[in-house]
Amino acid sequence: MVKDLKAVDKIVINAGELVTAAGNSDRPKVGTELNNLGLIQNGAVAIKGDRIEAVGTTESVIEQVEVTAKTKVIDARGKTVMPGFVDPHTHIIFGSTREKELGLRIEGAEYLEILKAGGGILGTVESTRQTSEDELYYAGKQRLDTFLKEGVTTVESKSGYGLDTATELKQLRVANKLGKTHPADVVHTFLGAHAIPKEHKDNPDKYIEIVVEEMLPRVIEENLAEFCDVFCEEGVFNIDQSRKVLQTARTKGILPKIHADEINPLGGAELAAELGAVSADHLGKATDRGIKEMAEKGVVAVLLPGTLFFLMKDEYARGRRMVEEGVPVALSTDRNPGSSPTESMSLIVSLACLKMKLLPSEAINAATINAAHAINRGHLIGSIEKGKQADIVIFDMPNHEYLPYHYGINHVERVIKKGTIVV
Amino acid sequence: MVKDLKAVDKIVINAGELVTAAGNSDRPKVGTELNNLGLIQNGAVAIKGDRIEAVGTTESVIEQVEVTAKTKVIDARGKTVMPGFVDPHTHIIFGSTREKELGLRIEGAEYLEILKAGGGILGTVESTRQTSEDELYYAGKQRLDTFLKEGVTTVESKSGYGLDTATELKQLRVANKLGKTHPADVVHTFLGAHAIPKEHKDNPDKYIEIVVEEMLPRVIEENLAEFCDVFCEEGVFNIDQSRKVLQTARTKGILPKIHADEINPLGGAELAAELGAVSADHLGKATDRGIKEMAEKGVVAVLLPGTLFFLMKDEYARGRRMVEEGVPVALSTDRNPGSSPTESMSLIVSLACLKMKLLPSEAINAATINAAHAINRGHLIGSIEKGKQADIVIFDMPNHEYLPYHYGINHVERVIKKGTIVV
Ligand SMILES: [Zn+2]
Ligand SMILES: [Zn+2]
Repeated sequence: MVKDLKAVDKIVINAGELVTAAGNSDRPKVGTELNNLGLIQNGAVAIKGDRIEAVGTTESVIEQVEVTAKTKVIDARGKTVMPGFVDPHTHIIFGSTREKELGLRIEGAEYLEILKAGGGILGTVESTRQTSEDELYYAGKQRLDTFLKEGVTTVESKSGYGLDTATELKQLRVANKLGKTHPADVVHTFLGAHAIPKEHKDNPDKYIEIVVEEMLPRVIEENLAEFCDVFCEEGVFNIDQSRKVLQTARTKGILPKIHADEINPLGGAELAAELGAVSADHLGKATDRGIKEMAEKGVVAVLLPGTLFFLMKDEYARGRRMVEEGVPVALSTDRNPGSSPTESMSLIVSLACLKMKLLPSEAINAATINAAHAINRGHLIGSIEKGKQADIVIFDMPNHEYLPYHYGINHVERVIKKGTIVV
Repeated sequence: MVKDLKAVDKIVINAGELVTAAGNSDRPKVGTELNNLGLIQNGAVAIKGDRIEAVGTTESVIEQVEVTAKTKVIDARGKTVMPGFVDPHTHIIFGSTREKELGLRIEGAEYLEILKAGGGILGTVESTRQTSEDELYYAGKQRLDTFLKEGVTTVESKSGYGLDTATELKQLRVANKLGKTHPADVVHTFLGAHAIPKEHKDNPDKYIEIVVEEMLPRVIEENLAEFCDVFCEEGVFNIDQSRKVLQTARTKGILPKIHADEINPLGGAELAAELGAVSADHLGKATDRGIKEMAEKGVVAVLLPGTLFFLMKDEYARGRRMVEEGVPVALSTDRNPGSSPTESMSLIVSLACLKMKLLPSEAINAATINAAHAINRGHLIGSIEKGKQADIVIFDMPNHEYLPYHYGINHVERVIKKGTIVV
């Protein structure tokens, strides 16, 4: 329901609890800063065009802005108003879904058996290669629609289900088209090095060569991605291969991100620090040293508790420890068809609290302002501050603690994206 | 959105995958029966008045019923149609919510510290005593509205936050009023023996006497409940006290249910079998013997994985084992303000799969037909069969496996309750 707001000169929202998530605009929050949500009780936000014009208590906002007959006032008293969620790590452009694998996994099938049955990531690659751009676009649009209904106003999207030049480019083109046409913002990451394609299963170095020498130049030429990512893991790509891809990308202005230490402590966190990556993601088995080095370099840790939940693991990334060591922590759904089929950032916030012992305030900062920093958008989105893009969500809940508490339910009542009511 | 269907002579739904959950109407499903969802691909359901008139393939339904110009045809091809969820264990009538306790628990506060800070169940009791019937009704209505949006068409509701005669009766009266006025059906359980009230903390036997001799007769006199329940647990009520309450209730026609072996193996499962209880609920620590005896007596095991999830426990009830031992397994949210603040039966189905290794088919039978048997309604609701009440949900998903797979999202598109479109 996109409403035409041309007749409206501005929007003023009166909140019960206003979560600004305000802090430093130039760097993510660390340590005890994460506990500060910049709360304003009985706060208000004024929106003009696509920007935030004023923020403060209702009294101070009314003093700052001119309310006219054309001003739309939204009464959200008794409710909680927050910045739109930012999801900094997703894989939303893919062919078939993989619900049939869940039963197999429950019955104890190992990952390799699932791969043999045509499932796993190579099944997704096969279906993504065979799916047309139009179909990929339509399915991706539905996923973005769901994100928006869940209060997620900006979504990072990775390629990586093509594993050949044509399909990697197809995925990125579809994502770019989506970003241009959908109310949600989409930020693009090239992840050619997501898995070893079956064509190169005995020679991953050869595939890395194709990623670096064939795919990457095309991605740059067509201006399809802002970030480059690698799946650095045992049985996927090692530290040297990962370094090669990310260093090459960086020299060409494509900023590095990395899937690091998800299942084995391979040294991905350390590599992220060495390269000054924008973020290192997963980190289920990151070493103490890796955590320390990430803190020193200010690399954002994007934690994905939904993935370990859905993979039926009992161990999660050491989010609590990372906060205490000064790592800027962010959260994401990891939305993908195999290991995390959800768009619910609210449930991810619940999982961060229940499984990684983040406080509600820390988890919400991690899902908004720090998630924005994880995609280099901390100056533009992720908090409710004067001059920032007006990406704002009204939740039907009395306070922010209620979000992880009343779990499994979408409390989003209204979503404003760039100053327009979109949900 | 309750639509007036007076002008409509019947409703016909064309489904992609039709989950009938049909089986035995006289007893819950056990063992391999739980794996059978009575699926019909390209199935259809015809509804006349508040009843199901015909079920089968689209062709066979069109042969059986007369489609007229006044027939409303709902096109749910490509979608999944299921019986409405039945939630057989909730505590939805209460005063304040308890979101502030989550942060305390994350920081490691023990239950006793939370109690001392005015929280825990005795905090809920205090606020419920002080809340008016009107306010309790309004808050309960909102919870039922959410249940309905989540596809739950019948909800069991327990008292137990009064712990004095006046408030226990107040809770039950409010729940009965809700049941009479809300589109969802509400089934009532008297749970006076939910906790030891502070007034009797040194003499629980005295409180049990009040439950049995003072509260129960009033509950019966006012016809406020169909079931009687007891919290049988270390530090709450022991086996003898529980037996006394449930036996007395049964002699007066109020059927026994029991909160059993949640945290300690006290013998609640065995007591449920001894008494022929309708259900034994929780069962996190039920013994092998208790499980065997429940199977022999056909006592329904109502499993509540959301509670252990929200309490940050890593151990769940042995659902897989219970299925294999022939116990009829059902699922519930345990919706309550302290240990499980959710109405999402979909997430409970995901948790049952991921945490207790039920197959999607088993978990869905457990959340529909077996949940109906857990409240003695197996003859009326819980499956899509000719003559049963027309409680039907259309999910925007391609098949039933998709429900636990695409987790954390409410896929409900439309809800039909007693033949009326209510969502
Ligand atoms: Zn990923
Ligand atoms: Zn209970």
